[in-house]
This record gives sequence, C-alpha cells and structure tokens, in this order.
Amino acid sequence: MTTSGDTRTPKDTPKDVLTELKAHQAVVSDLVQAQAVLSWDENVYLPPGAAAARGQQLATLSKVIHERATDPQIGDWLEVLEPSNDTKADTDEAALLRETRRGYDQATKLPEDFVETFTRARSAAQSAWVGARATSDFSQFEPHLEKMVELNLRQADYLGFESHPYDALHDLYEPGSSTEKVRAVFAELRDATVPLVRDIAERGRNVSDAPVHQTFPEDGQEAFAVKMAAAFGYDFEHGRLDRTVHPFATSFSKYDVRITTRYEPGFLNPALFGTLHEAGHAMYEQGISSAYDRSALGYAVSLGIHESQSRLWENLVGRSHGFWRWAYPQLQETFSEQLGEVSLDDFYAAINKVEPSLIRVEADEVTYNLHVMVRFELELALLEGALKVSELPEAWNAKYKEYLGVVPPNDAEGCLQDIHWSIGMMGYFPTYTLGNIMSVQLFEAAKAAQPTLETDLEQGRFEGLLGWLRENVHEHGSRYQPAELLKRATGSDLDAGPYVAYLNKKFRALYGVEGDGADK
Amino acid sequence: MTTSGDTRTPKDTPKDVLTELKAHQAVVSDLVQAQAVLSWDENVYLPPGAAAARGQQLATLSKVIHERATDPQIGDWLEVLEPSNDTKADTDEAALLRETRRGYDQATKLPEDFVETFTRARSAAQSAWVGARATSDFSQFEPHLEKMVELNLRQADYLGFESHPYDALHDLYEPGSSTEKVRAVFAELRDATVPLVRDIAERGRNVSDAPVHQTFPEDGQEAFAVKMAAAFGYDFEHGRLDRTVHPFATSFSKYDVRITTRYEPGFLNPALFGTLHEAGHAMYEQGISSAYDRSALGYAVSLGIHESQSRLWENLVGRSHGFWRWAYPQLQETFSEQLGEVSLDDFYAAINKVEPSLIRVEADEVTYNLHVMVRFELELALLEGALKVSELPEAWNAKYKEYLGVVPPNDAEGCLQDIHWSIGMMGYFPTYTLGNIMSVQLFEAAKAAQPTLETDLEQGRFEGLLGWLRENVHEHGSRYQPAELLKRATGSDLDAGPYVAYLNKKFRALYGVEGDGADK
Repeated sequence: MTTSGDTRTPKDTPKDVLTELKAHQAVVSDLVQAQAVLSWDENVYLPPGAAAARGQQLATLSKVIHERATDPQIGDWLEVLEPSNDTKADTDEAALLRETRRGYDQATKLPEDFVETFTRARSAAQSAWVGARATSDFSQFEPHLEKMVELNLRQADYLGFESHPYDALHDLYEPGSSTEKVRAVFAELRDATVPLVRDIAERGRNVSDAPVHQTFPEDGQEAFAVKMAAAFGYDFEHGRLDRTVHPFATSFSKYDVRITTRYEPGFLNPALFGTLHEAGHAMYEQGISSAYDRSALGYAVSLGIHESQSRLWENLVGRSHGFWRWAYPQLQETFSEQLGEVSLDDFYAAINKVEPSLIRVEADEVTYNLHVMVRFELELALLEGALKVSELPEAWNAKYKEYLGVVPPNDAEGCLQDIHWSIGMMGYFPTYTLGNIMSVQLFEAAKAAQPTLETDLEQGRFEGLLGWLRENVHEHGSRYQPAELLKRATGSDLDAGPYVAYLNKKFRALYGVEGDGADK
Repeated sequence: MTTSGDTRTPKDTPKDVLTELKAHQAVVSDLVQAQAVLSWDENVYLPPGAAAARGQQLATLSKVIHERATDPQIGDWLEVLEPSNDTKADTDEAALLRETRRGYDQATKLPEDFVETFTRARSAAQSAWVGARATSDFSQFEPHLEKMVELNLRQADYLGFESHPYDALHDLYEPGSSTEKVRAVFAELRDATVPLVRDIAERGRNVSDAPVHQTFPEDGQEAFAVKMAAAFGYDFEHGRLDRTVHPFATSFSKYDVRITTRYEPGFLNPALFGTLHEAGHAMYEQGISSAYDRSALGYAVSLGIHESQSRLWENLVGRSHGFWRWAYPQLQETFSEQLGEVSLDDFYAAINKVEPSLIRVEADEVTYNLHVMVRFELELALLEGALKVSELPEAWNAKYKEYLGVVPPNDAEGCLQDIHWSIGMMGYFPTYTLGNIMSVQLFEAAKAAQPTLETDLEQGRFEGLLGWLRENVHEHGSRYQPAELLKRATGSDLDAGPYVAYLNKKFRALYGVEGDGADK
C-alpha cells in the first residue's frame, strides 16, 4: 500500500521488520495528529461557512489513516515478530507488539462497508440528536438511536466477546476492563453514595453557592485559570488555552497539547474547574515519554486513566481545602469586590455544594457517579434488548427519580442531554466513574510515597505530585494496560473503597453529617 | 498504491477512468488542504515548543501527498484519456487533463532522492539564512546559497527547458511565461520607471508621510481594516483574519480562505494595506468555481495572476483618490484625534509617497518593481554562472545604487532581506511585477466594461468590480493558462504599457512633474 511495501525477501531479520513497523507507525501517528489539528481548528476557529469542506477533509484523513492502519503488511510484520517475542514480557518491544496487535485487529475486524455504514449513520444520528435536543422531541432521535443500538451490537459481534457484547464495546475505551468489573465497583459505589446523598439532603447543614454566582469579568477569570493551570505544571510552552462552547483537551504530540474552556460571566466554576480539569488531561499527554514518540505506545492508554488525571487535579487538588488555603488569597485579590468579604470556609463550601440535579456535566462530586450509573444500566438494558428504545425516556426518568430524587421536566434535560449515543459511543460512560475511582487510588498512593504532599499543596508546591504522576502514570503512555498501570502505581487492583472513604470523609465533614457512612 | 488501485480490466471506459482520476484528485486535494491547515496553525497559533513536531507532521503529509501525486496510475489514466481528447479543446475536461499532466510530469520528473536532498538542503539553508540575516553576515549563508543555485540548476535539468534553465524554474510559478517575456516587459518598465523616479526626486513637490506615522491604537486599526476588507467583498463567513509577524493569505478550499496581518502601533500602513492586499488574494481563492472543488482545476492558476488580484485591491483601489473620498471620512471617524485635521489630499499624498528605499516589501508603487528587477537580473546571472555567489553582495549593492540610488549599509538590509532563495525559490520574484502589470490591464478592462466603475468606487460600491473579476478571473481557477486568461479578460497579451501609463499619470500628477514620461 505504500511505496516501501515491496515484498520482503527471506533475509529480512526481525530487527529490520521492527524498524519497518516503527516507520509505518510514525507515519500513521503523524496523520492522526494532523487529523487532531483539523478537529481542533474545526472546534475553535472554523469560519461558519466551512463546515462541509472541513468534514470532507476529515473524512479523507480518516480514510487514508484507515487504509494504512489496516495495511496487510502490519499483519505480516506481526507474524514475523510475535513468535520471536514473549509478548507478555516486561519490555517496550513486547508492549509495542501487544498494542500493535490490538490496534490492527480492531481495525481489520470491522468490514469496510460496515465502517462506512456506521460513519454515515452516526452522522445522521448526531444531526437528528441536535434537532431533537433543541426541541426536546425524543421521537426525532428514536429511530436513529435504534440504529445505533443495532450497529453497536453488530460492532460487538465483529470485534468478538466472551460473555456480553458490552465487553467488546467498553474495551474500546478501557482495555482490559469488563462489564462484570464495572458492575462490581458501581454496586459498591452506589451503596455508599445513596445514603450519603440522603444524609446530606435530610440532615446536612445549609450550604450556599452564592459566592460563585456573582459577576466575574472574563479577563480575571482567564488570568486566574491560566495562573493555576501553570502552577499545577501544565506547560504553556507546549500548549495553549483557547475558548470553545464545549471545553476539551487535545494532543498533537506531547509537544503540543491544547486545552479549551468557556467563560460564564455570572458563574465562576465552569472556566475555573473546567480549565483545571482539562489541564489534568493535558498534563498526562505532555508527560508521555518521548521514547514513545510517534509509536503505538505514545498514546494515552485508556479513557479511565485519562479521566483519573483530570479529576485528580480538578477535584482532589482543585476542590480541596488545603489547595485553597494557598490559592484563595490570590483569587480574592483578583476578585476583591466579589470575594473580599467571603471567608475561605464559605468559598470552600460553595465550590463543594452537593445537590442532586438533572445534568451530568454540572453535577457535584458526590452525585456525579449516579448520573453515570443511570447511563451504564440503561445502555446495558438497551443492548440486552431488555429495554426498547421507545421506552428509554420513561426508564431514564424512573432511574433519576430512584437514584437522584429528581425527575427531568423534559427529554432535553433527560435522556437527550449527552452527545455520546448519537455518535455511536456505547460503553464509554463508565470510564468517567472509573476515572474518579482511580483518581483517589492514585492520590492516596502519591500521598503515601510523599509524606509532605498535603502540606506542599497548601503552599502551592505541585512539582512533587506532578513528578509522582509523571513517573507512575504519564511517562508510560500505553506501555502497560490500565489495570497493570494501576497495580504498579498503587499496589492495588481497581477498588472503589478509597473513593468511597474520600467522599464520606470530605462531604460528611462539610455537611456535618458524621455517621454510619463515614467509617465504612 | 491505494486500495482502489486494482489493475483495470479492458472494459474500463474513458468515463470510468475519468471518474477514478477525479476521485484520486479529490483525496490529494483534501490532503493538500490539510497540510495548509497545519501550516496556518504553525504560523498563527503554534506553542513555542512544538516546532519540531509540527515540522515532522508536515514532512509526513508532504511525503504522503507526493506518493499519491506520483502514483503511476495517474500516468496510466492519462494514457487512456489523452488520446480520446483534444487536449487543446476549450472544455473543462481538456483543461483538467492538461493540468493533471502538468502536475504529474512535474512531480515524477524529479527523482525521489533529489527531492529529499533538496528538502534537507533547503531546511539547512533557511536556518543558516535566519542566522546570517540576524547578524548581517553573508558568509554564513554563502555556501548554502551556492548549494541552492546548484540544486536549482539540477532541478531545471530534470524538469527540462529549451533555451534557459530559468524558464523551467520560473514556469513552476508562472506557467507559460518565459525568461524572454520577462526580460521584454521588464525592459519597458525600467525605461519608464527610472526617469519617473528621477523626476520625482529632482523636481517633485515635497510630500509628507507624517500623517500615517502617528500612534494608532490596534483595536481601531483592526476594526477599520476588517470593515474595508468586508466592503470589498472578502467573505468572513468563509474566512477569518488573524495576526502574524509575516502576513499571508491561505486557502483550505474556497469555503475557508484565511488572511493574517500585523499591527504597528506607530504606523498605519502595514495593517491597513496589508489587509487589503491579503483580502485581494483571498477573494480570488473564494471566487473559484465550486464546479472545480477538489480537482486539479480548483487551484489558483499562477502567482502572477494571484498577485494581480492582491495589488489591484491594495493599490488600484486602496491607494486611489476616488476610494478615499468614500473611505477617508470613516477613517477620520475612527482616528479623529490623529487625522481629524489632516485633509483628504494630504492623506492621499502620505499613502502614496515615493521614496527610493532598501527594503522591497516596504517600497512604494513606483520603486517596487526596481527591487524585483534587481533580483531577477541577479538570479539570472547566478544561474548562468556569470556571477559567483561570493560576489553577490557587491553586485546587489551596485544594482541598488544604479536603479534606486541607494546603497545598503549592510547585507541584512541588502541581499539577505528576502527568504525566497533560502527556501530554494529562484524564478519566483518576477511574478510580483507580472502581477502589478496585469493588475492594471485587468482594471482597465473592468473600467471599459463598466462605465460607472470609478464613480462606484467613490461611493463605496465594490460589487461591480468584484463581479467582473469573479467572472473574468476568479471563477476559472486553473481552467485557462495565465496568458489565455489575461487575453480572454482584457483582449490583450501581457503588456507593460497600461501600467507605465498608470504610474506616470498618477505620480506625475501627485508630484507635479508633468512631463516627458507622462505621455509615453
């Protein structure tokens, strides 16, 4: 498929073949990064009339990348290299072969006509979803969601699975995870969260978030967010901050990892915590070892690990009392009129107010995972056929009532709120909660390794924490599978326990509801 | 080379083959546009530490594009299609085959190892040039320029030429032009310009450019430049204006043509006329017929035609007295403090001050072409071996003395000022002057076709002029070769006469030196 693709002679050594494979991956990596640049530009700076042309350019890049990613040479190379390697060995080469095999199998298992059908159906579904959400009319989206369920089931069949089609889909986002593992940790988390939410609602003290709902000029918001992100260690020499309606982080190589945010003049949280969140994602990408540049190991290993980094900086640092002991005087200086008379404790309470709500992306730390669980359970039911698409709005509302005690007044604020299903992503949602769980496991391990960590954070010193994360998470790229990475970093398997303990300790103290949940 | 590249069966009709060729060109076009997005971003928004990674991504895209542009299938397709077509016919299909043949031959005539050698040498030369210019030390650049001359000669040999290697190089930028044609029009222009410059210097009235050298806040500069570009017809729905050190226009398809400018707080001209200039380039790209989207006919046909559009809007409109009768009150409103007391005539004189100077890009309309002629004559002499690279600084200074009456105090302001030779571009400079010449030929033809054109411009109505340019130049993309396009639009071949007449009329009036040159 490429000009270097001459038939190999028998004299080719595995070393030659490895060199060829790496050169091939370097080209694919550059093309993937080019695609990311075009997507970033599409979201940030695209003129309004250029959408169709950009869509065409991105489709062509996808096609060119897919052609190369499914080049039969890769299969030939792997057949030469795999027998001469212990692919479970703890070496870069073994990991490279594992990731190459994984990517090649994924790409080649899906027939080209299926990929095209899926791409077209997604495009139609997304467009229908935009309209359906705008008018809160589920019926517009319903046939498209039916199609998405059907195509996800076909995709799972092509990819293969042992016990549940959800495994095959979820594995695309969280390699090595499984429906069963997710069910287990979610059950534990739900059992701890429901009473915590109830205790706060029934017995908790009154917490006001009025301090963060004032008028905050955008310049000040931006300057402070940039200052904090830079203090954490987000490297503006290899990144930049732009504005978009939907914030994100994106990587064009570890040397160029960009973040975006949005400013609400009447609400401090979106830009502030959004920037810390995206900076957390970006620091992960910036920290991948340069030894893995342009190779299959140079990518973040999973969405769960990615989210653990964003949530760690956003919540475990950015919403902690210790951090604000250092940061709050600076914020007060920036917004003296708004916050000069607000105490640190009142500000800390305001940014940590717990309140069951309808919208996932606006949820607090405690209730956030309940939103995820609703989605996980519903997409499982849809894939199993236990729930018809037509019944989704009713089922959604019932689950919100059960878990959160609130009922959406319409489907736009209910089952139409997220983009994921409209772009064909089922099996993705759990990674948000897996990220939350792992963020605490990693944070606890960092604290155990660095006894001064908490006092460091209180004094605005973040190098220790970032250094530990670099060494134990970021550097490794895709060298280790998520579960192995977590085990090496923390000594443990995935475990909701530390996260449950963290939530109980922090929020029972804040709300004055010490009690049964706290010592779980 | 692509998965669609199965050997054709004898049943393929020319129509099938044409469809395949067009599909191939669409992919190449999308990749070229993706490359342009990455280059734009590199110039506008790249984080400082990302340069090497971006260079690598661009190199990979170049390689992928080159592979496809030299795909032997293209040659096969052309062999099927050319015999069944009168390639000189006045049809889109004949033009498509002509442009496809031209691009394919150019790409395939250069051996791959030569392309790589040239690429590496250019990269080294550009880097050496940056250092040499910064320290005004020609010796640092000298060996690289020798290499550039040698490689340009080799390139000319590969491409082939009849009478002069310069023909092969110049043809890359201005298809169908020739050294002989350039010599002829340049001689005529020089004979008219030298006495005009002399008369202005010796007998012209005193013109002050103090009005444009005041403090102009950037916000006002930007707002006014945007207003004028939009009034001309630059379409911000399909474009945008950003800031760079070196302004440019770039196209990612006719639906997304972006321009950049730079703001000097103490000098009005760079952002104002720079924006009008780049908007002129961009309106050309925005006006190419959508029928040629993603095909070999969808590109601007030459640099000379391109420059004719930028110079027409920048100078023939943007530096005309008529235009400012409409625009000046608006500029005075924007900058009432600076220009409230400056008369229209004094402002018009200030933006048209003629003064022999050292730097091409800052030159006025009259002396600009003398800068180009110096470069044309010197690069011819270098390629012919009549001038050694080591003698260049001396020869440069002698020509500046002869043509402009000024001598650079150092090589940074002399032969090191332009980037072109350092990136291997020889044969490019004449297109600037060809653009100037053609801009007047086209403007005169538009005036002849639209008797109200001049009064329209005085009243801020630009649709007539833009419409004429759309119909006679822009729409055609690469449908006609430059000479044919010019002939169809103006009825004439390339002719310096109208330009000479324009310069004499405008500047002899402005400087009060009516005389021998005026009626030439």
